[in-house]
Amino acid sequence: MAGNVFGQMFRIATWGESHGRAVGVVVDGLPAGLPFSEADIQKELDRRRPGQSEVSTPRHEADRVEILSGIFEGMSTGTPVSMLVWNSDVRSSAYDAIKDTPRPGHADFTYMARYGMRDHRGGGRSSARETIGRVAGGALAKLLLSRFGIQIVGHVLELGTIRANPLPFEEILKNVEKTPVRCADLEAAGKMLEKVTAIRQEGDSIGGIVELIIKGVPAGLGEPVFDRLDADLAKALMSIPAVKGFEIGAGFEAARLLGSQMNDPFRVVGGKVTSPSNNAGGILGGISTGLDIVCRAAVKPTPSIGKLQQTIDLKTLENTEITIKGRHDPTILPRIVPVAEAMAALVLADHMLRSGFINPRTLLE
Amino acid sequence: MAGNVFGQMFRIATWGESHGRAVGVVVDGLPAGLPFSEADIQKELDRRRPGQSEVSTPRHEADRVEILSGIFEGMSTGTPVSMLVWNSDVRSSAYDAIKDTPRPGHADFTYMARYGMRDHRGGGRSSARETIGRVAGGALAKLLLSRFGIQIVGHVLELGTIRANPLPFEEILKNVEKTPVRCADLEAAGKMLEKVTAIRQEGDSIGGIVELIIKGVPAGLGEPVFDRLDADLAKALMSIPAVKGFEIGAGFEAARLLGSQMNDPFRVVGGKVTSPSNNAGGILGGISTGLDIVCRAAVKPTPSIGKLQQTIDLKTLENTEITIKGRHDPTILPRIVPVAEAMAALVLADHMLRSGFINPRTLLE
Amino acid sequence: MAGNVFGQMFRIATWGESHGRAVGVVVDGLPAGLPFSEADIQKELDRRRPGQSEVSTPRHEADRVEILSGIFEGMSTGTPVSMLVWNSDVRSSAYDAIKDTPRPGHADFTYMARYGMRDHRGGGRSSARETIGRVAGGALAKLLLSRFGIQIVGHVLELGTIRANPLPFEEILKNVEKTPVRCADLEAAGKMLEKVTAIRQEGDSIGGIVELIIKGVPAGLGEPVFDRLDADLAKALMSIPAVKGFEIGAGFEAARLLGSQMNDPFRVVGGKVTSPSNNAGGILGGISTGLDIVCRAAVKPTPSIGKLQQTIDLKTLENTEITIKGRHDPTILPRIVPVAEAMAALVLADHMLRSGFINPRTLLE
Amino acid sequence: MAGNVFGQMFRIATWGESHGRAVGVVVDGLPAGLPFSEADIQKELDRRRPGQSEVSTPRHEADRVEILSGIFEGMSTGTPVSMLVWNSDVRSSAYDAIKDTPRPGHADFTYMARYGMRDHRGGGRSSARETIGRVAGGALAKLLLSRFGIQIVGHVLELGTIRANPLPFEEILKNVEKTPVRCADLEAAGKMLEKVTAIRQEGDSIGGIVELIIKGVPAGLGEPVFDRLDADLAKALMSIPAVKGFEIGAGFEAARLLGSQMNDPFRVVGGKVTSPSNNAGGILGGISTGLDIVCRAAVKPTPSIGKLQQTIDLKTLENTEITIKGRHDPTILPRIVPVAEAMAALVLADHMLRSGFINPRTLLE
Repeated sequence: MAGNVFGQMFRIATWGESHGRAVGVVVDGLPAGLPFSEADIQKELDRRRPGQSEVSTPRHEADRVEILSGIFEGMSTGTPVSMLVWNSDVRSSAYDAIKDTPRPGHADFTYMARYGMRDHRGGGRSSARETIGRVAGGALAKLLLSRFGIQIVGHVLELGTIRANPLPFEEILKNVEKTPVRCADLEAAGKMLEKVTAIRQEGDSIGGIVELIIKGVPAGLGEPVFDRLDADLAKALMSIPAVKGFEIGAGFEAARLLGSQMNDPFRVVGGKVTSPSNNAGGILGGISTGLDIVCRAAVKPTPSIGKLQQTIDLKTLENTEITIKGRHDPTILPRIVPVAEAMAALVLADHMLRSGFINPRTLLE
Repeated sequence: MAGNVFGQMFRIATWGESHGRAVGVVVDGLPAGLPFSEADIQKELDRRRPGQSEVSTPRHEADRVEILSGIFEGMSTGTPVSMLVWNSDVRSSAYDAIKDTPRPGHADFTYMARYGMRDHRGGGRSSARETIGRVAGGALAKLLLSRFGIQIVGHVLELGTIRANPLPFEEILKNVEKTPVRCADLEAAGKMLEKVTAIRQEGDSIGGIVELIIKGVPAGLGEPVFDRLDADLAKALMSIPAVKGFEIGAGFEAARLLGSQMNDPFRVVGGKVTSPSNNAGGILGGISTGLDIVCRAAVKPTPSIGKLQQTIDLKTLENTEITIKGRHDPTILPRIVPVAEAMAALVLADHMLRSGFINPRTLLE
Repeated sequence: MAGNVFGQMFRIATWGESHGRAVGVVVDGLPAGLPFSEADIQKELDRRRPGQSEVSTPRHEADRVEILSGIFEGMSTGTPVSMLVWNSDVRSSAYDAIKDTPRPGHADFTYMARYGMRDHRGGGRSSARETIGRVAGGALAKLLLSRFGIQIVGHVLELGTIRANPLPFEEILKNVEKTPVRCADLEAAGKMLEKVTAIRQEGDSIGGIVELIIKGVPAGLGEPVFDRLDADLAKALMSIPAVKGFEIGAGFEAARLLGSQMNDPFRVVGGKVTSPSNNAGGILGGISTGLDIVCRAAVKPTPSIGKLQQTIDLKTLENTEITIKGRHDPTILPRIVPVAEAMAALVLADHMLRSGFINPRTLLE
Repeated sequence: MAGNVFGQMFRIATWGESHGRAVGVVVDGLPAGLPFSEADIQKELDRRRPGQSEVSTPRHEADRVEILSGIFEGMSTGTPVSMLVWNSDVRSSAYDAIKDTPRPGHADFTYMARYGMRDHRGGGRSSARETIGRVAGGALAKLLLSRFGIQIVGHVLELGTIRANPLPFEEILKNVEKTPVRCADLEAAGKMLEKVTAIRQEGDSIGGIVELIIKGVPAGLGEPVFDRLDADLAKALMSIPAVKGFEIGAGFEAARLLGSQMNDPFRVVGGKVTSPSNNAGGILGGISTGLDIVCRAAVKPTPSIGKLQQTIDLKTLENTEITIKGRHDPTILPRIVPVAEAMAALVLADHMLRSGFINPRTLLE
């Protein structure tokens, strides 16, 4: 209820502030019998980690995950998996300047409005560091889903006005980790990299669009009415800091199509029901069709920029200005990719359990 | 859990199929002491009702709401409010053709995949008629919110490629119900109406964009991390049949802006904190800023069209074709407006209670 | 959250006041493919109905259930089942006397404390009539469970100080509906009947103990830690009006035993794991052992009695007296039996779905 | 949903196995502005800790709590409070014997039935060590409640057949921590201590009854119908390992009373509504009356005993015997007291937030 818990049957509770002692997650609902290790989690955290390349903040934290429970002899036990990452590279004094002057585009002001106080150091709970718990929990969800043939891949489709060309799934899979911008169209990726470098030098930041492709989802997954698979994906992706929009399949483009253009015809091919087009994005009436689920998130430019900005002093209630110091991402896009994958994995694992496609007690049967 | 319940502290459970005996809703969590009557509910249902004008289906149902509980001497008692609308104008035989041939763009196929059976008459549970429960529940949420100075107004911003000009809130409020398309820019509304008429004659359908403006929300509303106000609005609107995208504030446009363009500066005006721009759409870090909440939903063209479409026979698993008979909306847009308002009202009432801005026991203090 | 919803995956939302227009329930989570009819529900409602015999209130209501949704061609569709019973035999004026003078042992005073107002007619929402929704929902749960070999039988074990002798399950099953007190030990039943008759003539009331025996539960049902099967049964039974205590297996007697007496030894008999004793009541660590689940609820005497009682005037805040008029049960025990069975059925159906023993989508496989 | 999360608005998620790396809890829903420190938590953990005296297991763990998040400058921030205790004194090899031979009265067999595997070391997740998370979370709940004048005190009312005499609240408060059995009637405490010593020498164990008295609860707390305050207390206490029964007020004794004896008359004393008796135990219709809440839990004897017991071999499915080695409590009663207080505190804090008696955002107003 207090907003830090996500999911029904596959449920995570995240905790931790940017400059507190640690950040972490408790995963409840992982069935017994799934082999996993810290390496499976670390792999995903490394993709989220700052300082991976020139396009992200140089905060250098190893972000080593520690698994504290829910595992026995290398296998999940069906009990909660508690994981944490200690905070190490903490320079709180760099944030003294923002204690009373809320940064535009950040949650500083709204946290004060809500709580009457806040841990301002590094953004506290509203820091992107909070997503470590999501990625760690999502790594387990991904691993579980992979046992049932479900694969989730994210990539940067747009950065600013630069848009990747459409590519076959296998090529996206092959290329996406090749460049620091996580754009699988390598030519577009080159332009994006140039753009980001220029933006950074100006002390500014830039946004873009992340796309997720989810393969292998069985037809019939998702609840009708409110807990539709697409509604839950929307909530999941919109809950990621900096995401301002969500769409599935044809998305906003659907608003400009005729019904005769939008509707995906049903066809039987090789004894299986399919469609030559996928404007629905793999979901009809909130329930999966069996085709790929394709959805996108619009990501705003990182709010922390080096330029002078107008703000207020919360104590005196007077206008003032701020120049944000410290280490920041000129674009958060490539680091949103693993977070978006994690959130989608949490939704799918949850629905696979809720819909009975996965036995919630154990995989050992 | 089974998807027909929405909300935490202000919670609705909807039920009913298009051609069953009735459709309805149970509203749990309305505090005691709110005066209301069937007229308050009926007013909203009339806006949702089919057959209001030439742009919607001529199914003629009065859709009279009956309140069965939770009210005493004209006032809410704090106990569940059960409401229903009897189904009357039911022509089930018109739907025999679709029993085994799923309509493209509809949930027929996915319901079969999920349940192994379905009530196919009129689309059963996946019919737009299901939204009656949402609108009735949302009417109570709206009434409650109005007591706390919160007002929600929806309008059609785009139909196909016709886009309304930006208008001041008061003008939207004044004009929106003047035309059957619920577009407040009356010139654009005229073009939209022409477009819909042409589309209908072709036996086709068209989509568009609905915008919501929410005024009077106090700063500090919304939970951090997962249950962000914008994430919950996204889920709420994406759960409406035919909605394929959601955005807040600058939305997808934010993906193309620089940080220095996107960030709304904070200013003190007349002793109050505000911003000259509202790219955030009234929400930062998932929590309201106190500015208007502005969000949009992309609506696909009605999937029921008069044109011949390709589909399959579920029994023989062979390809076939279908021409959908019966009464259908050439565009669902104007009827989505009250549904979208209702869903937003449910989210806001829920968060107002969760965050303690409204006493959940009683208003009589 | 507002307390009128029960269960996670098999979930009911009840609504209605004693003298409102109707009382009812929405059942969400019943899988598709279960054949059922109004007769299945009516059978259980008839067991709960007042006026069945000389031991209960002569309020004569047929309490005819109407099913409004979730059924198609005699089979559940997987969508919510809405059911209601119209209120007919309503004599509200008989309750004018209690508007400002709360009845001792009733919820009149606490509802006023909570809501600042209440529908006082017939006890409003706190009336035993509220249990109609539970019994109707529980009837569907029972029917679902019976498909998986689970059977729930309740009987009156004690009335006042009269205690039934222990009987084999089959004999309980055979005898329990033979007498109006629902005690399977027919000799004890005779004494109970005499006792109730005497109590009624004095204008007083009496309590007792209801026992449930649940057969056929597979080993491994129930969640560890908080959502233990016994904890959920405790909540379910304690939520029934007039229940003041709950115990499982040896229950309070366990407090007086030594570990060597309490522990049930494990034995292999015919290749199956079992125990010669069942002090655990079929549950260890919150999870079923596969033996019968045996639990009991302590029921207080009906608070409505004909004798003069001390109370207060809520308007003047002065002491006063009350003699309750109207039609009341000298004991609620026999009518608690079907309600207790219903609540237990709801818990078991919920856990069977949560634990994956029942496919939540459909039984048609 | 997976059973390791408790509460709605004040919610804890516990994790950890007896012989894993640590055990802990995440507390979500604590409002901002509550001053607290590790000492506040430690005080309660020390009361729960093994090895406090001759009546409990000599496992010597300091059980030092570490707070990892949700606190800033000594005050809660409104974000999740993560706390853990490292496991140190772990002798796993002592448990090799029970890997395939389930201990009677323990959850070994049912965990195997549910998960198909388990962490058998020290009982794994089903160990009493799991209650550390409850007590740590409950300590915060208690602290929060104390700000609103609510005080929870538990004591041992019965051990075996030895029953404490009724004492005034202040005397219970003064005496309860004076003896290792946590019985406030010091004469009875002496007899209990003798009894436990004798039982221990026989290698046996004994149970009893713990009573909770909750003072200062405002009238009007609790939800009607399912989430009654007493139903939620029942679930909370029944979820504690070894608890087999729950009762409130007159409890099981109510089953033997007449209505004229059971009903508490209402009286106005000094302008306030009260009752000379409290058979209701402070709750009517699921909602608090404003009188003390008094409830009791029946605790079975510790299942781990030194005597030879019959069990089975899970691998060969043959009968065998077991003598449990290791360090065990001859009675768990005194250590149940702080756990029961913690669970009750969690329920009350949750309801105080749900019912709007505490502002869920912040105490800083």
